Amino acid sequence: MSEQNQEVGDNEIHSEVLGNESRRKFLGTTAVATLAGAGLAMGLSACKKEAQTTAVGKASEAGGDASRAVTHGEFDVPPGKLDAYYSFSSSGHNGEVRIYGVPSGRILKRVPIFNIDPMVGWGITNESKAIMGTNPDGSLKYITGDTHHVHGSYTDGTYDSKYLWTNDKLNNRLARIRMDRMECDVITQIPNVQGFHGIFPDKRDPVDASINHTTRVFCGAEFATPQPNDGRDATDPTKWFSLFTCVDAESMQVRWQVKVDGNMDLVATSYDGKLAATNQYNTENGATLADMMSVERDACLFFNIERVEAAIKAGKTFTIGTSKVPVVDGTKEANKDPKTALTCYVPVPKNPHGVNISPDGKYFVCSGKLSPTASVVATELVHQWFAGELKDPRDAVVAEPEIGLGPLHTGFDGKGNAFTTLFLDSQIVKWNVEKAIAQFKGDKSVQPVQDRIDVHYQPGHGYTSMGETKEADGKFYNSGNKFSKDRFLPVGPLHVETEQLIDITGDKMRLIHDHTAYPEPHDAIIVRADVVKTKQVSDMNDFPNAVKSFSDSRIERSGKKVTVYLTSQAPNFSMQEIKVKLGDEVTMVLTNHDKVEDLTHGFGIENYNVNFIVNPQETHSVTFKADKAGLFWIYCTHFCHALHLEMRSRFVVEA
Amino acid sequence: MSEQNQEVGDNEIHSEVLGNESRRKFLGTTAVATLAGAGLAMGLSACKKEAQTTAVGKASEAGGDASRAVTHGEFDVPPGKLDAYYSFSSSGHNGEVRIYGVPSGRILKRVPIFNIDPMVGWGITNESKAIMGTNPDGSLKYITGDTHHVHGSYTDGTYDSKYLWTNDKLNNRLARIRMDRMECDVITQIPNVQGFHGIFPDKRDPVDASINHTTRVFCGAEFATPQPNDGRDATDPTKWFSLFTCVDAESMQVRWQVKVDGNMDLVATSYDGKLAATNQYNTENGATLADMMSVERDACLFFNIERVEAAIKAGKTFTIGTSKVPVVDGTKEANKDPKTALTCYVPVPKNPHGVNISPDGKYFVCSGKLSPTASVVATELVHQWFAGELKDPRDAVVAEPEIGLGPLHTGFDGKGNAFTTLFLDSQIVKWNVEKAIAQFKGDKSVQPVQDRIDVHYQPGHGYTSMGETKEADGKFYNSGNKFSKDRFLPVGPLHVETEQLIDITGDKMRLIHDHTAYPEPHDAIIVRADVVKTKQVSDMNDFPNAVKSFSDSRIERSGKKVTVYLTSQAPNFSMQEIKVKLGDEVTMVLTNHDKVEDLTHGFGIENYNVNFIVNPQETHSVTFKADKAGLFWIYCTHFCHALHLEMRSRFVVEA
Repeated sequence: MSEQNQEVGDNEIHSEVLGNESRRKFLGTTAVATLAGAGLAMGLSACKKEAQTTAVGKASEAGGDASRAVTHGEFDVPPGKLDAYYSFSSSGHNGEVRIYGVPSGRILKRVPIFNIDPMVGWGITNESKAIMGTNPDGSLKYITGDTHHVHGSYTDGTYDSKYLWTNDKLNNRLARIRMDRMECDVITQIPNVQGFHGIFPDKRDPVDASINHTTRVFCGAEFATPQPNDGRDATDPTKWFSLFTCVDAESMQVRWQVKVDGNMDLVATSYDGKLAATNQYNTENGATLADMMSVERDACLFFNIERVEAAIKAGKTFTIGTSKVPVVDGTKEANKDPKTALTCYVPVPKNPHGVNISPDGKYFVCSGKLSPTASVVATELVHQWFAGELKDPRDAVVAEPEIGLGPLHTGFDGKGNAFTTLFLDSQIVKWNVEKAIAQFKGDKSVQPVQDRIDVHYQPGHGYTSMGETKEADGKFYNSGNKFSKDRFLPVGPLHVETEQLIDITGDKMRLIHDHTAYPEPHDAIIVRADVVKTKQVSDMNDFPNAVKSFSDSRIERSGKKVTVYLTSQAPNFSMQEIKVKLGDEVTMVLTNHDKVEDLTHGFGIENYNVNFIVNPQETHSVTFKADKAGLFWIYCTHFCHALHLEMRSRFVVEA
Repeated sequence: MSEQNQEVGDNEIHSEVLGNESRRKFLGTTAVATLAGAGLAMGLSACKKEAQTTAVGKASEAGGDASRAVTHGEFDVPPGKLDAYYSFSSSGHNGEVRIYGVPSGRILKRVPIFNIDPMVGWGITNESKAIMGTNPDGSLKYITGDTHHVHGSYTDGTYDSKYLWTNDKLNNRLARIRMDRMECDVITQIPNVQGFHGIFPDKRDPVDASINHTTRVFCGAEFATPQPNDGRDATDPTKWFSLFTCVDAESMQVRWQVKVDGNMDLVATSYDGKLAATNQYNTENGATLADMMSVERDACLFFNIERVEAAIKAGKTFTIGTSKVPVVDGTKEANKDPKTALTCYVPVPKNPHGVNISPDGKYFVCSGKLSPTASVVATELVHQWFAGELKDPRDAVVAEPEIGLGPLHTGFDGKGNAFTTLFLDSQIVKWNVEKAIAQFKGDKSVQPVQDRIDVHYQPGHGYTSMGETKEADGKFYNSGNKFSKDRFLPVGPLHVETEQLIDITGDKMRLIHDHTAYPEPHDAIIVRADVVKTKQVSDMNDFPNAVKSFSDSRIERSGKKVTVYLTSQAPNFSMQEIKVKLGDEVTMVLTNHDKVEDLTHGFGIENYNVNFIVNPQETHSVTFKADKAGLFWIYCTHFCHALHLEMRSRFVVEA
């Protein structure tokens, strides 16, 4: 209790008034104090000296610092001008992926994935339902999802604009987005895991040098469960474990899984294709908070992909329950000999929450909210450990600078600097990696921390433009903040969240603007606009059920099953009236014959809960029961043309 | 065919190159040419002279006009500053309502209405499903909707921040949003109609002067159908008709309906509470395009609310099918005597598409895409017609200025000027109402049109700040455009749409910026920020199923039905483990005991397709079948607190 008071007191002493807002007071009472109050003060106590230094050191920097001033218009994207970057962002438990323009912050598209979108017809058309997965009665298996990460496919160490992947932490699925159309094309259920959180594609093959592009996607799972999880061992946590999963980037089939100690958050991959990494908390495999805190350090866990796949080839595998996916043992206990180990547990301070690799491929940076440090792990030294040339995995840590309270995720500018979100300090800290290494080696004259900037409030993920590729350009940094407090007009009980865009080109970071984000965004990537290649008009032949000519329009009946083949061309559907009988199972197949870019039509049936769109040259279908007799107008729901309102047809259900 | 070529030719002659875009060419080939090609050239032919004048007259205005220049930063909302206005916007067939900040264009909230939102749990919780409506098996009746209009409740002629209403054109429902929480609280199914398009609340009672606030919401329906629509008369259009509906603003029960001729789009109401208006197309009641075009004019239709309600009281009603709603006859044929008429059909040029009332209450402006004019109908003269003092309803038209091609919707600045979207010209035209009246009276020296500005492209709705209240302030105008073409980075086959914000304080309109809008926005209102009063923390007592203390946490079983009473307080749920049996029907009731603003928790169950949020002091519940045995982690899906990731519980289903 005195600990908690002390903590709050310190925060209030250092409180700065920014405008009219007592920012530190807010932070003191919600984040730091509650953390201390919850009995997790140990990590904080250790870092309190640093915290004070940080806060004091910062006071002079905050407020009216002219070098941080952004000129009005400097980052404007005026009417008619295009953004320089795309940002592909997760949406948390909204279940979608969002595409933003950077620096404007404009939302260019919502890509429905695990949610239903009646605008597009996602979750309504037969085609989207087949991707999402259905129950035997044809209803959707899931209508919820929780996307935390979005990452793109690589060729030669940078984005190739082919695919994006995103995770579902809630129902444990991996989804792929084809980037030419910016639509989800496959969703894969990951077996044997819960809390599927981190993902990252590999960047090249670990063995075959000619495969210099993404062929695997790695998936980290957070929650340990009984295995198999069919009712057994539900009260015996010693039998629970979680798994690291590899999915084939093309077929989207699950290739293999690795049994691990502890819980995984994020995933990162090396540029040489040989390593995948994940931050591990609760390496004790504890089921209660006390058990989870019993050892001094957790780990940044590395997978030797070549060895894992060799072990699988050699049949050193087991399977879990009804799942056919081969599993290998990656636990610490089973991988004590570096020369044969599949995994390497590099000790880092407790409860790391993020792992990111530098654009030069040399360092993995791992940190978490309980220590005020970032651990820098050298890729080369991890390789040396696997080669039996490094005694202790901890020796792979080449720096551990104190950077501030609650460090979570790190982005890079490609110029040797790292930018880490400080969750508890509500700041972004810029620090130099080589300086941190020099300091760690004993040089007391160097100061790794280069700059700090306040964000509003409590940043989770942060990421830089092209920062997860070898083309990191050091232009923009985005801070995804968990609370906006009073930064925007109130809209009732739930405030919108914030994305703050920061200019990182100079020595000092400059806040460009606050964007709003419908809850709950997590991670994202920022991709140069010229990298992204999209297709504005589809090929009719890509749709196997296309109604290829107007004269193919017809109604076919097979017992109670009726299939209606329709076409659209502005401002008409090919049939003015469609007659069926009460009780029929009706399938409507609609091909849009318009060829002009963006000449999309909507297909809505009054009172029949049907709506979807068909973009030019596309085909979609819906199946439903004709369970109401009467006349039901069909209308074009998506503005298409001067005579859009006149674009109608009639669905007649005879009693 | 030569007509079409001629039209395209004209457009190309007048084409202007704005930047690198051949804007006129785009318009020529998609909008004007297709309209002509589809055989609807008659209206256009009539207005061609005007079109040429317009285009030529405009050429000098477009491009580098210094008086239109917006200074960088002039309309910026820098980090930490609040917007001056809210915009409440429809979303078309996405089914939601959106709240934007103006002038920033930031999206402050999505309000799920007719769609499912797994973030909030809309369509997932029992409480939201009860509002949305379910089938006997508990599944949602509809998961699609098409919102076109959003309007707020009035007191003394301006917004009172109590309610918003929005329509569903697809499944014919009226939804209400309570503005303190910005959440939908009631959805009412409108019987006997299809294509429910326009809505407007009344502004005061037509009789009782003490009721100076909204008590009714009027609903216009576009599509005529057989009545009752149970399979009869499906091929006999002469028996089809549509209905104008009145819903009680408080109870949300349907009060009455009026049978009308033709099809209705928008609705507007007078400031004196006595009149509701709707624009009518197809007053011929035709079923084919040729039939719909057989008479010279359509109508702006006025309802005498006092008389309609007196007729209902007097029992001069009928009902339709199984609906119990009293219906009166408002057709032209049945309302020939002005002194007893319930309705007044004021003739206006064919196919009007919008009707809006001026902030002084004096004029209704009605226009549509087939005539280059806006018809100004004097409120006072409509009253005179109902009093038997005006011979011909057409005499209520006091002006009909030629304003440009494809006029649709009109906003007002409260200073005597009207701003109309020109769909075909892709412009906003500013014109002076009194000057238009003077011109109509014969004064050839006045020029009603004051200014034009290009928008990009094909504007539908346009609206001004506070423009639908007596507090219209003439600050901002928003143009909702149907096509963005190449104004934003491409995102595959479907481009995002645009909202363009225009400064209307000066003589010349100035384009402030382009915002993106996820398809398909239609109408909106712009409300001064100080008018809107929201509540950030709910009252636990407003939730009848609240679990009011931690010690009330429990599991109750009745046969196979299990109810789990849970509470949350950061960073814990009140039970660490919840055990049920395979096959149980489980209801989880969760009350959030946190009291701090925005300390919202999410409740997700792994692989069980359950997610919803509970804001501080709120209670929500879900019911589902425990159909999988095993251990399923429950986790907080909405970032709440420093120990958010640790906020977990376990759902154990025993085999």
